[in-house]
Parts: sequence; structure tokens; C-alpha cells
Amino acid sequence: MAKLENDTLIRALLRQPTPYTPVWLMRQAGRYLPEYNATRARAGDFLTLCKTPALATEVTLQPLERFPLDAAILFSDILTIPDAMGLGLSFAEGEGPRFARPVRDEAAVGRLVPPRPEAELRYVLDAVRQIRRALRGRVPLIGFAGSPFTLACYMIEGGSSADFGTVKTMLYRRPDLLHRLLEVNARAVADYLNAQIEAGAQAVMLFDTWGGTLAHAAYLEFSLAYIRRVIESLAREAAGERVPSIVFTKGGGPWLESIAACGCDAVGVDWTVSLADARRRVGERVALQGNLDPLVLLTDSAVVRREAERTLADFGGGPGHVFNLGHGIVPATPPEHVAALVEAVHRASRTRVRGPAPPGA
Amino acid sequence: MAKLENDTLIRALLRQPTPYTPVWLMRQAGRYLPEYNATRARAGDFLTLCKTPALATEVTLQPLERFPLDAAILFSDILTIPDAMGLGLSFAEGEGPRFARPVRDEAAVGRLVPPRPEAELRYVLDAVRQIRRALRGRVPLIGFAGSPFTLACYMIEGGSSADFGTVKTMLYRRPDLLHRLLEVNARAVADYLNAQIEAGAQAVMLFDTWGGTLAHAAYLEFSLAYIRRVIESLAREAAGERVPSIVFTKGGGPWLESIAACGCDAVGVDWTVSLADARRRVGERVALQGNLDPLVLLTDSAVVRREAERTLADFGGGPGHVFNLGHGIVPATPPEHVAALVEAVHRASRTRVRGPAPPGA
Repeated sequence: MAKLENDTLIRALLRQPTPYTPVWLMRQAGRYLPEYNATRARAGDFLTLCKTPALATEVTLQPLERFPLDAAILFSDILTIPDAMGLGLSFAEGEGPRFARPVRDEAAVGRLVPPRPEAELRYVLDAVRQIRRALRGRVPLIGFAGSPFTLACYMIEGGSSADFGTVKTMLYRRPDLLHRLLEVNARAVADYLNAQIEAGAQAVMLFDTWGGTLAHAAYLEFSLAYIRRVIESLAREAAGERVPSIVFTKGGGPWLESIAACGCDAVGVDWTVSLADARRRVGERVALQGNLDPLVLLTDSAVVRREAERTLADFGGGPGHVFNLGHGIVPATPPEHVAALVEAVHRASRTRVRGPAPPGA
Repeated sequence: MAKLENDTLIRALLRQPTPYTPVWLMRQAGRYLPEYNATRARAGDFLTLCKTPALATEVTLQPLERFPLDAAILFSDILTIPDAMGLGLSFAEGEGPRFARPVRDEAAVGRLVPPRPEAELRYVLDAVRQIRRALRGRVPLIGFAGSPFTLACYMIEGGSSADFGTVKTMLYRRPDLLHRLLEVNARAVADYLNAQIEAGAQAVMLFDTWGGTLAHAAYLEFSLAYIRRVIESLAREAAGERVPSIVFTKGGGPWLESIAACGCDAVGVDWTVSLADARRRVGERVALQGNLDPLVLLTDSAVVRREAERTLADFGGGPGHVFNLGHGIVPATPPEHVAALVEAVHRASRTRVRGPAPPGA
């Protein structure tokens, strides 16, 4: 494997000094990019795009051709695991994901088996290997998975939901059954992320998209406990290098202290939380990743620059910050605003460290 | 006016001792009640129901006939103010609210005038007066309004929105224009709540449904600053009695300290926040209202009782707790689960104060 040229992401996740604040963006490979839409049109549908390593590699690299981002993130979907469990995943055009066989009773939970990554999820690992080769050490590759609870939400509801009534009814009435399902998911997610690490992922991120819909105590018991179990099972190193882990619970602001204590290296925060407050609350335990409101990217380049600088100032300098959005890029985002953001983060954070840059730097 | 027989709500909001924890429920008059649906069907549509004081009185009292709730809340809608500003409110069946004339530019903002409560919003004040008469002092009546920012969201988007892209674009690009709009809204809301207090409302609540979608700094500048302005303008007393104020920002967990410092008597909290944590964070400054996950009411009476007791235990006893949900009752809620909840809150909180109740008490 090629030596990593730009290791700012890895260093920042481990709270080591970097010459500037590294930046990558959730959904940086996505529908706001015309070249992504062209590849997706060639693939025919979203699942084929995910399941064809050459195409997944192509779209993973697209944003790096446009912007000097400090990381690539595997192009895939969090639902590859339940799909590999045989639940029958499909994406209807303009709608969210659908499972043909949702998991709602003892029998269905009893049938669940964690997929073998190099068998049922081989296509993901092939994509990781191809992306690593294509990157040639330019920037690190981030692997990822959905959190055990977030996967359970889709598996139980059979798709997305406004209020997760079916999941919550199981949580409150049959906590034992939900725990059994979450145990399977935790094993599946740990196996999957370890396989991604073995295939070449240089950092890993857990997306807990729906943990934030839970009551405080339920979050700790049904989401964070299984995130901790995954984190504890992860390989800490690969090829002699530390592989940092990031945990992101959307809406997890009230619980940052608990999340920071789960064993991860970095905590993703959404835009509702001030990075200064977050830093005060988590202390020296973890790095922070975030947290610009993605809708800032709908405005104009001047506003984007101003808000990027505010976000950096809110964190306040020093090691341990990875710049990101507080959630994914929205499809209506003009790509030139992303260019302005990446440029502003690099320039302003360098200035914060080193004093004013020379003109044209 | 009749003397208040059950003043537990008022006392709890003012952090005075009560013999048990008072309970009321957001959307306690609503679609989960067959009698509400019957009245609404008679009214023909939702807006007519809101605008006909006799019908608004009828539905306000319906839940009190079924359950020994400790407060009534005015049946109305937060959008009465922008409707009275002439924006052309309608509710399409099965959809959310729509404004025919959204407010998106200087000219539209310049045309906005705070409604005169006893003129354009007379029907609300007539409802308040009729409800007070019908209650005959049984329990207090809570008046309410949307927060200036939450009203602005609907006024600018022209309805609800998945991400409030139009509002946020104005917030980031034309903060001056949004501030002008919010100033008008703050005056309108303060006038409206003061008129409700004069007409007989014994406590008032500000619903900040969408403040929680904002970034930390934007929340303070565009939502909380105007909530504070409203609170400062409110009459503190009516007919020689204190009129407590409640502020509820859905998703406001990360900002509880700031909300508690806005001058209100009580802070509503949603279920993502532990009441014990919230209490630690706000100290002795305010009472807390909340915070059961409304979806618990979809389960069964035994679970409802258990979770009610957990919520009471989470607060931990002592004065300053008003039991409520963390958001409105969902339409699929079986009314008998609401009965179980109210009974459990009363029984368990009395026990916490006085020791075990006698059988059948």
C-alpha cells in the first residue's frame, strides 16, 4: 500500500497537531455533483451503484477531483448489512429504502444471522480495496457502518418513519426482543467494520442517524451500549497504523459526555451544539468532528466563508478538530459553494495556527 | 371569576410545594378522542373549529370530562397570528398548513403589522372567556402562542418544511430582514398573550417548535432573543394572581441553561433530556415541564405506568415539576392509556410525597 501523503485527518482524530484543520463532508460523493448523477444514471439504480465496486470507486473519488478534501469516504449505504441478512432491500425512486421482510417478531429475530463480510458483503470490501489503490495514498479512506440501533429502526419499520412507532413499541413492550436484535446487529457491524479495516479503511465512522429520537435512558440502553460494544470489538491498528473511530449520533447533543466515554476517538456533532460547549463538556477525551449547518451551503460563497470561520473560531484552535457539516450535503448545494468552504477552512485554520498567509497562498 | 379549586399547576410552575405532581398533556384535546373528531366533523374543517368560540370551548373541555387533568389548554392553533396578518392560512386535508402569501422579501416584511387582538383575534379571546366560564374554577386555563421564530418559519416557507431551506437562507444571507420580521412577530405574540391573560388565561406557554432546527448561535440570536422579548413584555399578574410562563423549544436540550435564563417561570423539555440532568443544569431558576415520550402511550397501560413512574423518579421529587409529554399526543393513542397515565402520575407522585396511599385511594 502507498504511504499516506496527507495524514491530517488521522492526526486530528487522534488529537495530534496538524498544520491546518482537515475537512471532509458527509455525502461529499452525492447528488449535488453532476458527475455523480451521470455515474448513477449509468448504473441504472442506487443499489447497483453500491454493489458495483468499479462504480463505487468512481463516485468515491469524484469529489476529490474537484476539491482538496482531506479524506475520502467509502461510497456505500448503511443498509448493506440488513440487505445481506436477506431482508429484501429496495429503493423506490424519490422515496426512501424499503425492506420486503421487516423484522417484527420472535421468529424473524431468531432467523437473523450476522453476514460474513467476505461472502455476502464482498462487494463492499472489493470497493474498499479498489478505492485504496486508486487513492495511491493521497488521503485516507474512511469506512463506515450504521449503528446497531439505526439499522434496527429500518429493519423493524421496514423503511424510514416519521416517529418510529413500531420500533418504540417494541422497545417499550418487548425490550428483550429488541436487545436480541441489537446483539446480532452489533456483531454484524463489528465484523463488517473490521473487514473494512482489513481491506484498507484507515478510519471508521458509525452513523447513528436515529438514536437521537430516543429518550435519554433508552438512548443509553438501546443505542449507545451497542455502539460501545462495536467500538470495543474494533481492530485498533492496521498495517502498523492506528485506525481511529468516529461516533456520530444525530441529535446527540444532550448526551455528549456519555458518547465521549464510549471508547471512540472522535465524536461527530451536529450544528445544534456549540463546538466550544462540546469541547468543554468532553474535555480532552476525544476529538470533535463537525458541525456547519449543511444549509449554509445553499447561500453564497461569502456567507459560506464567514460561517466556516465562525465554526473554526467556535472550536477555538488547538488539536482535535475535523471540520465537517452537521449532517449530509443536500442535493440542491451548488458545487462551487463546497469549493469555497474547503478553501476557507484550509486558509482560515492555517492562519489561526501560523498567522496571516502570504497573498495567493 | 370563580376561585381556582385545583391550583397545583400554578403552584408547581412557581416551584411551590404541591400534594402531588400536576399533569396535563400537549394536544390533550385532539384527534385521539372520538368526541373531538365528532365536533371537528360538525365544524366542517379545522379552521372553523378554531374560529368558533363555542366549538373551541367544547373541545377544550372534552379531555377534562374523561381524565382528572390538572389544567385545560386553550384549543387553538399557533398560526392564528400570521392568519390575522392576512397571509391567507388554509389546511388541506391530510397535509399541513399553507399560507397563500408567504413573506419572502422586503416589501412583504414591510407590510406586516401586529394584529389587534380584540379585533382580528377576537374569536380566540372569546374562546378564552367562554372556557373560563365553563371551567368554573375547576383547573387553570393555559393560553399559548407560537414563538416569533416558529411563526416566521411558517410565514417564510409558506407551510411546514423538511429542512427550512428558505428560512435558513434568509437567516444567513439577510439576517437584517429576518430580524425585522421577528420584531413584528415578537410584538404580535406579546400583545396576543397579554390579551389572552386579560381575557382569563391563568398561565401562558410559548411553543418554539422549530427553534431546535437552528445552529447554536442562530438559536440564541433568532429564536431565544425574541422569546425573551415576549416574556419581558408579559403581564406578570392578573386579578391579583401570578400568571406563570412556560417556554418550550422542541430539541432545545443543548441550550437549557440559556432558555432557563430568559425570564420564564418554567421550561418545557422533550424526552431526549433526562429531567435529572436538566434539573442539575438549570438549578433553582425555573420549574420543568415534561417529558414522557408520547409514543409510550401507544404501548399498554402497564408500560405507561412504569414509564410514568420512571419519569417522576428521574425528576426526583420536590417542587417544580409539571408532568407532561415531550411533545403532543399522537392520534393513534388509545384514550384508556391516557387515563392510565394521569392516574399513575397522581398516585405515584402522591406516594413519593406522603408514603403509600391506602388501597383504592
